[in-house]
Amino acid sequence: MIRIAIFGFGAVGRGVAEVLIEKRDLLNGLIGDYRVVAVTDSKGGIIDENGVDLRRAIEIKKGNGRLPEGVTTLDVIESVDFDVCVEATVTNIETGEPGLTHIRECLRRGIDVVTSNKGPLVVAYKELVRLAEKNDAKLMFEATVGGAMPIIKLVRNDLAGNEIYSIKGILNGTCNYILSRMEKERLTYEQILAEAKELGIAEADPTYDVEGIDAAAKLVILANSLMGMDVKFDDVERVGITNITPNAFEIAMEKGYTIRLIAEVDRVEEILRVSPRLIPIQHPLAIGGTLNAALIKTDTAGDIVVVGRGAGSKETASAIISDLVELFRCRGL
Amino acid sequence: MIRIAIFGFGAVGRGVAEVLIEKRDLLNGLIGDYRVVAVTDSKGGIIDENGVDLRRAIEIKKGNGRLPEGVTTLDVIESVDFDVCVEATVTNIETGEPGLTHIRECLRRGIDVVTSNKGPLVVAYKELVRLAEKNDAKLMFEATVGGAMPIIKLVRNDLAGNEIYSIKGILNGTCNYILSRMEKERLTYEQILAEAKELGIAEADPTYDVEGIDAAAKLVILANSLMGMDVKFDDVERVGITNITPNAFEIAMEKGYTIRLIAEVDRVEEILRVSPRLIPIQHPLAIGGTLNAALIKTDTAGDIVVVGRGAGSKETASAIISDLVELFRCRGL
Repeated sequence: MIRIAIFGFGAVGRGVAEVLIEKRDLLNGLIGDYRVVAVTDSKGGIIDENGVDLRRAIEIKKGNGRLPEGVTTLDVIESVDFDVCVEATVTNIETGEPGLTHIRECLRRGIDVVTSNKGPLVVAYKELVRLAEKNDAKLMFEATVGGAMPIIKLVRNDLAGNEIYSIKGILNGTCNYILSRMEKERLTYEQILAEAKELGIAEADPTYDVEGIDAAAKLVILANSLMGMDVKFDDVERVGITNITPNAFEIAMEKGYTIRLIAEVDRVEEILRVSPRLIPIQHPLAIGGTLNAALIKTDTAGDIVVVGRGAGSKETASAIISDLVELFRCRGL
Repeated sequence: MIRIAIFGFGAVGRGVAEVLIEKRDLLNGLIGDYRVVAVTDSKGGIIDENGVDLRRAIEIKKGNGRLPEGVTTLDVIESVDFDVCVEATVTNIETGEPGLTHIRECLRRGIDVVTSNKGPLVVAYKELVRLAEKNDAKLMFEATVGGAMPIIKLVRNDLAGNEIYSIKGILNGTCNYILSRMEKERLTYEQILAEAKELGIAEADPTYDVEGIDAAAKLVILANSLMGMDVKFDDVERVGITNITPNAFEIAMEKGYTIRLIAEVDRVEEILRVSPRLIPIQHPLAIGGTLNAALIKTDTAGDIVVVGRGAGSKETASAIISDLVELFRCRGL
């Protein structure tokens, strides 16, 4: 019996809970029986060693209600027996908190961690990996980059044995939506941003996306985890998309190019940057909408391209579930 | 110490040997120490329990020489102690031989198998999977489909927990080369085929590729291994590319389409076919050259696209190496 604790019960945490309910039979076949023994958010939580009633917990949050007060995540870590935590609290790339403390405390106790939270990995990747190794725990983080688009396990496992020369990616769906709409409609950045806000694709304060901060955080994770580097957020050269004009698209398109916000780490060229780049319109990275994409250059396999949905509750949950399966598939052998 | 036997020492077997030599340090870090204790081809072989001199074996074959006679693959299976076989003999999709016998005999003895040979999987997938389970052995076959393009492990692991609705792919690089050249040059099929033969992209007898036989064999493997189906080669509806005219491209391109040979398995629409299809020119499957691509439709992750080099000695070796790593990575936990 695998005992799971879910920390953070927003869109991602609830998405995971929904998949754990809906796909019980399929998942039992892959990893055996499981039970969620605790769910927490920043305000409260539910502990039940016989299995939290996930449907009820989801209903409470959907109705804008609160999980019962008086239960904190640290209480759960200290007092509940569980095998793996799903850390899905909100990203803070400056402090990594509260996820960083949650992950540290779990790994110290030998509890495996599956996370969608970029913050702790951006702030303390090396430390967390060492902590996991020391305590024979696993730290999985497919969901931090690219949503449902496979990239961490794809590079580590499917391309195992390859040297990775570079990764070039579209890692922020909001920017890609704005740029691909600007390409088609030739409207201004401000006009399309307003449209994206209405559709819920851009946040009220879009800084985190449009200034390339989100993409840069993901790039740091890719560089450190897949290319053996040791870089920090501030090492990323970063330009956002706020100054791109319809005229820039005009000129680009005349020459057969479009403009995309590309996150790029290149070991050979010593590049670590997020910036708007000209991309040939038939290039695999010239994708539209909120998709994410990555072009991975390797020595033996050559170039690999992968494209998928970069965000969304179900999509991020899919990445978390694949990490859970990976954890227990290997453990079970 | 992992003891490896390589059966089949053509382009793929030698490619694997080269990677095992060149990347020893990297691979030692991933799977520990290893040694190739036997290499065979259809005419002979070398057995050395202290490690075959792979460089010499490669030299012999490159100089059109022969491996020493008097050693057969079945001798090796019966008399040599080894942990995993790399089965890289030539594909025969009617009988599956000689690979089928090699794989059966290894699995029966509990020896893990990593293969690039489509034949045994097309002929006897279910039987081999059962045999592997019964004997607690593993059967890995990433290299049978898509060359260096990740697909088997990508779907099984990276997309674990997803239901796969359909897979649509370009699974034959020769056909894709011919079609994408026809698209650009508007020459006849015969003209481009002649060019492809000169470049070594098409065989002297191109039937296997251009009639869709190779793509159909790969489709059978995908359907059976990734979608829980139980289909045979003859179940695939199959049309090749030999009747496509420059005029067909003319008409397609006018409407914003191109033509590609698409292998398609769709559980919902009950489709299992290989045929030339109209593809919008900006669609992710509208790739050029000898690349392979796949569009995987899933319930939770949505649509995933992956593109990579579909053939080549090093590329296929890359897939085999990733299977080897997967085997021993999990075993080592």
